[in-house]
Amino acid sequence: VSYSVTTPASPVLAATDKVALLIGNMHYLHHKQLQAPVVDVHALGALLRQLDFKVVSLLDLRKAEMQMAVDEFLLLLDKGVYAGLLYYAGHGYENFGNSFMVPIDAPSAYTSEHCLCVQRVLREMQQRRTGLNIFLLDMCRKRNLNDDIIPQVGALEVTANIVFGYATCADAEAYELSQGELSNGIFVTFLKRWLLEDEKITVLLDKVAEDMGTLEITRGRQALELRSNLSERRALTDPIRPPRQDESSARNLQWAKAHVLPESRHLCFDCGVTVQLGFAAEFSNIMIIYTRVVAAPKDITKCEARLTDIPEELDVDIKCTNKESPEDLGSPLVPVWSLSCPSCCLYSRICGLQKLRQELAFTVCLQYRYQGMDDFVEERQRVNVGRPLIAKLNLQ
Amino acid sequence: VSYSVTTPASPVLAATDKVALLIGNMHYLHHKQLQAPVVDVHALGALLRQLDFKVVSLLDLRKAEMQMAVDEFLLLLDKGVYAGLLYYAGHGYENFGNSFMVPIDAPSAYTSEHCLCVQRVLREMQQRRTGLNIFLLDMCRKRNLNDDIIPQVGALEVTANIVFGYATCADAEAYELSQGELSNGIFVTFLKRWLLEDEKITVLLDKVAEDMGTLEITRGRQALELRSNLSERRALTDPIRPPRQDESSARNLQWAKAHVLPESRHLCFDCGVTVQLGFAAEFSNIMIIYTRVVAAPKDITKCEARLTDIPEELDVDIKCTNKESPEDLGSPLVPVWSLSCPSCCLYSRICGLQKLRQELAFTVCLQYRYQGMDDFVEERQRVNVGRPLIAKLNLQ
Repeated sequence: VSYSVTTPASPVLAATDKVALLIGNMHYLHHKQLQAPVVDVHALGALLRQLDFKVVSLLDLRKAEMQMAVDEFLLLLDKGVYAGLLYYAGHGYENFGNSFMVPIDAPSAYTSEHCLCVQRVLREMQQRRTGLNIFLLDMCRKRNLNDDIIPQVGALEVTANIVFGYATCADAEAYELSQGELSNGIFVTFLKRWLLEDEKITVLLDKVAEDMGTLEITRGRQALELRSNLSERRALTDPIRPPRQDESSARNLQWAKAHVLPESRHLCFDCGVTVQLGFAAEFSNIMIIYTRVVAAPKDITKCEARLTDIPEELDVDIKCTNKESPEDLGSPLVPVWSLSCPSCCLYSRICGLQKLRQELAFTVCLQYRYQGMDDFVEERQRVNVGRPLIAKLNLQ
Repeated sequence: VSYSVTTPASPVLAATDKVALLIGNMHYLHHKQLQAPVVDVHALGALLRQLDFKVVSLLDLRKAEMQMAVDEFLLLLDKGVYAGLLYYAGHGYENFGNSFMVPIDAPSAYTSEHCLCVQRVLREMQQRRTGLNIFLLDMCRKRNLNDDIIPQVGALEVTANIVFGYATCADAEAYELSQGELSNGIFVTFLKRWLLEDEKITVLLDKVAEDMGTLEITRGRQALELRSNLSERRALTDPIRPPRQDESSARNLQWAKAHVLPESRHLCFDCGVTVQLGFAAEFSNIMIIYTRVVAAPKDITKCEARLTDIPEELDVDIKCTNKESPEDLGSPLVPVWSLSCPSCCLYSRICGLQKLRQELAFTVCLQYRYQGMDDFVEERQRVNVGRPLIAKLNLQ
């Protein structure tokens, strides 16, 4: 066997596409609630979009929903050279060399049966012939003593394009900081300082590790672990090469589905009031709906348009509907979208859009009062806004 | 909790000492023989010595010997900040996230009981408070289906100073090249091109990975995997800081033991012949002994000094004793040491010095012929050279 040991000139590396799936689990049914994932997923999503990634970001998923989300993600990775990035923030554990992501509906004594195995996802990504597979796992890696199941994940291929960034070492925990609602976890705090750098992804993560190492409070408790078999100098900043005909259209179609917000619309009521119905997205499965009275007859003095009859399968907290100020919704991300919303609205935050079993229909209930009258009058209008955002993908 | 996110000025990083244990297993009793470890271990040892590493290099170890070698290595790592580097070339496997090194006496169906667990060694290194732990594993990482034992290695600490360089990916094999005796395996071929660079060890290994990725024949079969949780910018080139009083003396003493060659000496025989007995080291457990007639009475025409009665516990192949040219010893490393040996000698290669149960004693058998006589005359002299090299450490 003869071989050459000269280093060839580096080719210009490009992705045929760049897609990312970001999942943050916070509101566990049977486990400690987490604070940081909402901010972490959002911060990372915003940065990745700047790097031309197509980002699907989802908060608070159950087992079946996580599985469906991953399956849809894999569809995005179909055909050709990709940069596939999976970020997960939430509870997790590591047994026998395999990493498990814990869905929000995991029972109190969960095993691998209740969780998603990262290495299994990796195998499926490899089967898609991806060009670069990145896993950023922002979770604990302690052993789960409830779980004695030996994972039977098949052997991985030698694709030499897999990079893991673990928020912490094997057997260790990943920490959140208690700095108020808007603070990132430790990992993303440092990751976001470097993510836009034009560096090979391994070099970038190594710099994050070094940076994180300067933090005194986590010394001896949390340290970034990098695993890589990447043989090429691939970076998140690599350009996306122009698609060959028809190549990316299916992919883009699939992708586009998950990001369609309903169009803003005006509802005309019999009493002469016009209500604007507007939408904003916090995540691919969390939508803000706001209502605003834009026109009313002069003899109507007080007038409000409230959302009601929202499908019961959605996570709609009564505390998060028809609020007079965005801040009242209790979301740490309000500052991010509230500037682009009109004021003098009622705001509602609709979570868990992946659970929608049919098109999203609700009632806009107009309550108004004529000048000089004491009683409120009510007028209702049923609205159907189709399948917004991730609901389009039918993750059932 | 408040914390600072400013990056402090990098301190000058230094090691209190730099030590390396290199093990190469080739001559398996029940498994395929390997070719490259002898050259790989030697090449790496030579480079590490250039970087001021204290290198113990051992070839062909049985289970108990490997364990003893590791234990001695750990003693070298006692107290303070170190750069501990363990290189292993030989058969290996990976089960449930743990890596196992296979000793040469492993039975045909071996399990983890017959092998050394790398993660166990790592834990022991951590307990020594080492400053940098580097593992370079040049072995297969396929699953061992004979072995269903779940390793019960305790949890690792978060020392943020562990770096693994795997010659290949999980589930994959590491290859040798068939390029003649003097060729390195794939991993060391590329590693040695970068090892002297003044780079953070993670950056260095990442460059090796990229370089290795250019090799066509191993594409899809072998790719370097890097694992690191190193939070500081530590490099193999970091200086060794001057020891505080008494601090490194025990360490140096321990270390020095394993590297003492017997002193060259002259043996005077009754017949008037003087024989020089000289020594060279190939590895810490492989020694070359050469004999050379330096003076003889004029009436002695033919005269040879042969080694015999070598302790039976040593691996002394009759094919490797009393050879007229170094090349006849069949060691690929002959070119390395033969230049510094005198010519007109008889050369013997003594392997497995770790097995020596007492001091190394042998007989030098002088065979000579007087001018005009047909018969050879024999004169014997018993020689004791103490415990050379690794034998000093009593790895029994």
